[in-house]
Amino acid sequence: MADAVQEFNDYRQKMNEKLLADNNKVIKRIFNLDTNAYAEGALDVKTKELLGLVASAVLRCDDCVKYHMETCYKQGLSKEQVMEALSIATLVGGTIVIPHLRRAYEFWEALEANAAKSE
Amino acid sequence: MADAVQEFNDYRQKMNEKLLADNNKVIKRIFNLDTNAYAEGALDVKTKELLGLVASAVLRCDDCVKYHMETCYKQGLSKEQVMEALSIATLVGGTIVIPHLRRAYEFWEALEANAAKSE
Amino acid sequence: MADAVQEFNDYRQKMNEKLLADNNKVIKRIFNLDTNAYAEGALDVKTKELLGLVASAVLRCDDCVKYHMETCYKQGLSKEQVMEALSIATLVGGTIVIPHLRRAYEFWEALEANAAKSE
Amino acid sequence: MADAVQEFNDYRQKMNEKLLADNNKVIKRIFNLDTNAYAEGALDVKTKELLGLVASAVLRCDDCVKYHMETCYKQGLSKEQVMEALSIATLVGGTIVIPHLRRAYEFWEALEANAAKSE
Amino acid sequence: MADAVQEFNDYRQKMNEKLLADNNKVIKRIFNLDTNAYAEGALDVKTKELLGLVASAVLRCDDCVKYHMETCYKQGLSKEQVMEALSIATLVGGTIVIPHLRRAYEFWEALEANAAKSE
Amino acid sequence: MADAVQEFNDYRQKMNEKLLADNNKVIKRIFNLDTNAYAEGALDVKTKELLGLVASAVLRCDDCVKYHMETCYKQGLSKEQVMEALSIATLVGGTIVIPHLRRAYEFWEALEANAAKSE
Repeated sequence: MADAVQEFNDYRQKMNEKLLADNNKVIKRIFNLDTNAYAEGALDVKTKELLGLVASAVLRCDDCVKYHMETCYKQGLSKEQVMEALSIATLVGGTIVIPHLRRAYEFWEALEANAAKSE
Repeated sequence: MADAVQEFNDYRQKMNEKLLADNNKVIKRIFNLDTNAYAEGALDVKTKELLGLVASAVLRCDDCVKYHMETCYKQGLSKEQVMEALSIATLVGGTIVIPHLRRAYEFWEALEANAAKSE
Repeated sequence: MADAVQEFNDYRQKMNEKLLADNNKVIKRIFNLDTNAYAEGALDVKTKELLGLVASAVLRCDDCVKYHMETCYKQGLSKEQVMEALSIATLVGGTIVIPHLRRAYEFWEALEANAAKSE
Repeated sequence: MADAVQEFNDYRQKMNEKLLADNNKVIKRIFNLDTNAYAEGALDVKTKELLGLVASAVLRCDDCVKYHMETCYKQGLSKEQVMEALSIATLVGGTIVIPHLRRAYEFWEALEANAAKSE
Repeated sequence: MADAVQEFNDYRQKMNEKLLADNNKVIKRIFNLDTNAYAEGALDVKTKELLGLVASAVLRCDDCVKYHMETCYKQGLSKEQVMEALSIATLVGGTIVIPHLRRAYEFWEALEANAAKSE
Repeated sequence: MADAVQEFNDYRQKMNEKLLADNNKVIKRIFNLDTNAYAEGALDVKTKELLGLVASAVLRCDDCVKYHMETCYKQGLSKEQVMEALSIATLVGGTIVIPHLRRAYEFWEALEANAAKSE
C-alpha cells in the first residue's frame, strides 16, 4: 500500500520534468503559479491546502486529490480534519464524489503506512 | 470478465465499511440518503435506477455507472432498455461520454457472464 | 409568472430557426437526433423525458431543465414524480444543484399557471 | 447595489420554503445536511465556509458563491482572505472561473454597502 | 441588440479593473497569462482564438464564449468558421451546449450589428 | 511504451464494434456524426482536430485526448503545436487539467516511439 505514494510521486515528477523541459511558457508559468498560490498569505498554508483538496475533490481529479492529501499530511492536518473537508466536498459535489472519497481514504492510509515504515 | 463485477463490489464494500466506521456524520448521512432515494415512491425502482444511471453517465463517473448497471440488471431491466437510457446520456452529455459507454457495455457483459456462471 | 413559459419558448424557437437556417450540417443533425432520441422505444416517452430532465439537472443547464419540464408536464407526469426525479438529481449532483432546483420549481408553477389560464 | 443581497436572499428563502413544504423527503434531508455540515467540528466555521465557497466557485455556481460569501462576511472573514480563497479557485478551476470571480467581487461590494447602510 | 456588446465589455472592464486593483498576485498573474496565451506562436492567433472559443463553449461559460467571439470577429474569422468550431463543441459537449449556442449566435449578430453601426 | 497506442486502439475498436452491432439508432448516428464533424469544411482538418483535442482536454477525457492526439500526429501537426493547444486548455480549464497533460504528453511519446518502430 505504501508504494502507492512512491509510485504516484515518481510518475508525477518524471512527467513534470518532461513538461517543463519542453519550454512551453504558458505551462511553465501555470506550474510556477501552482507552487506560489499555496504559500502563506492572508490565509495560512493548512487552510490553503484544504481549499486545494476540496476544489480537487468536487472537480473529481484523483491525482490532484492525492497531491493535496500528501501536502495536508505533511502539514500535520489530522485525518479527522481532512475527512471533514472531504465531507463538505461530497455534500456540495454529490454522490458522484463518493468513488473519489474511497480512493482518497485509501491514499491517506498509504501515507500513514509510508510514514510508519520510514520511522 | 465476470471477475470485474466481483472485484468492483469487493473494493467498494471494503472502502465503504472503512468510510462508515470513521464516524463522519455528514458522510454517513449521505450514504444513508443514497440507499433511500432509490426506493419506490411516486416513481418505481426501475425508473429511479435508470435515472441514477443516466445522471452517473453524463457526469462521467465509471464507478457510479457500474453500480447502477448492476442494480438495473438485478431489477430485470433489459440490455436494450439500459442502452436506450445510455444513448440519451450520450446525446445530452456529448461524445466525451463515449469512452464511458464502452466501459459500461463491457461491464454489462461481465454482469451477464457472471449470472450465467452462477446458474 | 405564466409568461415565463411563453418567453422561454419564443426565444428558443426564434434562435433555433436561425441556427437551422444557417445550414451547418452537424448542428442540424444534432437537433434532429434530439427530436428522435426521446421517441418511444424500449423505454416509454415519460421515462425518457425524466431521463432527459435528470441529465439536464445534474449538468446544471436551466434551459434544458425547462424544456424537459414542459415536455414532462405535457406528458402528464405529476409534480410529485418530477420532484422525485429532481431529488435524485440533487443527491447525485450535490447541493450545487439546489439553485437550479429552485428555478425548476418556479418554472413548474409557471407551467401550471399557464395551463390554468388557457382552460 | 446593496439591494442585490436582499433580492438574492428573498428569492432564495421564498423558493426554499416552497421546496420544503413540498414534502419530498430526500430534498428535505439534503437541506438539513447542508445546514449541519458547516457547523464547527474538527475544523472551525470560518474554514468550512471558505471550503464551501471554493467548492462553489470551481463548480461555477453563482448562487452558491453568493450564499457562502454572505456567510463568510458574517463570520468576519476579510475581503483579502476571501479573495485569496477565490484565487485558489481560479487557479484550480481555470480562467472560466473569472466571470464568476467578477460577479463574486461585485456581491462582496454589495454586502459591504448593505452593512454600511444598516449601521 | 448591438448594445449587448457594449454592455458586456463595460461590465467586464469595470470589474477586471477592480479585481486587478485589489492586488492579489495570483489573480493578477492569471489575467496576465490569459493575455499572453493567445499570442502568435507555433499556432496563429486565429487558431488560438478558436481553441479558446471551443474550450469556453464545452465548459459552457457564456461570458468566455462572448469574449472569444468578439476576438474571433476582430481577427476576421467568418461566421461560417466560427459556427463550424461551435458545431464541434456541441458534438463533443452534447445537447446541453445548445442553449449556449443560441446565445452565442445572438451575440455574433450583435457584433455584426455593432460593426455596421460604426461604419 | 509504443504498445500503449496499440492497446488503446484495439480496445476502442473492439468495443465500438460491439456498440454499433447493438443497433441502437441514436448511438449509431452519434458515432457517424463524430466521423463527419472533423472533415474539411470552412476550417481545415488540422484546426478541427486541435479543436477536438482542446475540447477533450478541458472536459478531462483521457481517451478522447488520446484519440485526437493520434489524429493530430497523423495529420502532421508538430509536438510544439499540440502542446501550445494543450497549454490553452490548461489555462482555460485550470490546474486540474495538469494530470491529463502528463498522460497526454506520455501518449505523444508513445506515438513517436510507435512511428519510429514501424519505419
